[in-house]
Amino acid sequence: MLFGVHALVWTGALDAESLRAAIRNTKEVGYDFIELPLLDPFSFDVTTAKRLLAEYDLPATASLGLNTSTDISSEDAETSAAGEKLLLAAVDAVREMGGAYLCGVIYSALRKYMAPATERGVENGLSVLRRVADHAAAAGITLGLEVVNRYETNIMNTGREALRYLDRLGRDNVVVHLDTYHMNIEEPDFTSPVEICGDRLGYVHIGENHRGYLGSGNIAFGEFFRALHRAGYDGPVTFESFSSAVVDEELSRMLGIWRNLWSDSRDLAEHALGFMRSQTHAVETIGQQ
Amino acid sequence: MLFGVHALVWTGALDAESLRAAIRNTKEVGYDFIELPLLDPFSFDVTTAKRLLAEYDLPATASLGLNTSTDISSEDAETSAAGEKLLLAAVDAVREMGGAYLCGVIYSALRKYMAPATERGVENGLSVLRRVADHAAAAGITLGLEVVNRYETNIMNTGREALRYLDRLGRDNVVVHLDTYHMNIEEPDFTSPVEICGDRLGYVHIGENHRGYLGSGNIAFGEFFRALHRAGYDGPVTFESFSSAVVDEELSRMLGIWRNLWSDSRDLAEHALGFMRSQTHAVETIGQQ
Repeated sequence: MLFGVHALVWTGALDAESLRAAIRNTKEVGYDFIELPLLDPFSFDVTTAKRLLAEYDLPATASLGLNTSTDISSEDAETSAAGEKLLLAAVDAVREMGGAYLCGVIYSALRKYMAPATERGVENGLSVLRRVADHAAAAGITLGLEVVNRYETNIMNTGREALRYLDRLGRDNVVVHLDTYHMNIEEPDFTSPVEICGDRLGYVHIGENHRGYLGSGNIAFGEFFRALHRAGYDGPVTFESFSSAVVDEELSRMLGIWRNLWSDSRDLAEHALGFMRSQTHAVETIGQQ
Repeated sequence: MLFGVHALVWTGALDAESLRAAIRNTKEVGYDFIELPLLDPFSFDVTTAKRLLAEYDLPATASLGLNTSTDISSEDAETSAAGEKLLLAAVDAVREMGGAYLCGVIYSALRKYMAPATERGVENGLSVLRRVADHAAAAGITLGLEVVNRYETNIMNTGREALRYLDRLGRDNVVVHLDTYHMNIEEPDFTSPVEICGDRLGYVHIGENHRGYLGSGNIAFGEFFRALHRAGYDGPVTFESFSSAVVDEELSRMLGIWRNLWSDSRDLAEHALGFMRSQTHAVETIGQQ
């Protein structure tokens, strides 16, 4: 298992200075990779990011959520074309940085919808994603479809729904991306989604129920890590946490980050890595019991 | 403890026929009261509701969420005046039906906000709520401020935040209204919010993490009912559940109800009452252990 941390633990900005601090801190704390938000790949300075990642010898993954103007599940052709352009640019940025994963809400807008998804919209999204997946496959990149809660998409809120979507998509380099924060809202438990997804689970986010310090909330992390262990999961695991102390203008508001759950990023990130390592160390002894 | 059920378990409409079926079923299943949505008290036929409640000898409480045009936490005077008018009408409707509680998101709009609350908006809301509370007090009505998750308000997401708001409000007939569905997203656990609120907790919603059958999800109901018991809580407890099978045009979309988690209202309601009675029966033996 490879442990990463989302850049928004460190900074809401992606200028060279902020990026350097985020990458340096991630490396110093001992994470295996950093997950960079690519909500706007066109303005993202991939050259600088690539240089800094090389300087600190740190791999990167990338994640994003589409917005209303780039929603590939829209029935409007112009909107879904804009989404396709954005996703292709994000894949190119990941390839340029030598990354292997692009994940997140890349199949719809990351927003509170006001109506259920339409079949025509879903078909639109599938068509776009097939082309994006093929573009990604040519660069050895895997796409992760992040299953998020009802307030952040109307397309897939459970692992089961993600699998049905993947079946229709029909591309091997697209995997399910589960996130404990969202599972806590939508799934029956923290075991069955992992079991149901099996080897189609390819990316994981670890977040507490209120998105603060791991262990300061009610999520059954023990149950989840035991399920990952039994399933033989060995892919990326990113720690995610959001506080009003570190703000990305677009993402923080979309995610409804109103509370200050922490202000010391370094302490938070160190604690989270220790917490996740402690969980995996414990479950590795299960086979001996 | 008095057990109630939210009318949206039965129907998304409030015409005489739907209302009769909801009230009759609620009574037949054995609930102590029905919770009626009063999102639009002006169009609500209070005379018919009063007659049907009397016919079936069933008490009612009422709940609502304000919307963008009636948001009393808005900085716009016209909007908050419209909200005050709506809340006063809702209090009048509850009084007319002989009810004792009006609760829900009555301190802000029930919606995904795109920015944090402002101090001026909060002050606006407090001023309105003081007048509404006084109007309610004259009719022996208690107001419950429902603590909901980050996607449904930006004013209060935890019991602690509700208490701070109540302290500023300064009205004895206004209480905290906790809901397990929202607690699961925002609170550290299911015990401390009950302990912290103490006798200022005055209304409770019971819902599963995915809003389906109680016990088919991950909420620690045992922990919550033990906390209610230790706190000596003996107020109303309403079962809430939402499925795409029963739709209220406004509420269902605001709450993001995309999935069909059940379609047999009667079975769901019977099961929930049995589940809640089973929990309270068990905790009543604690003092003897």
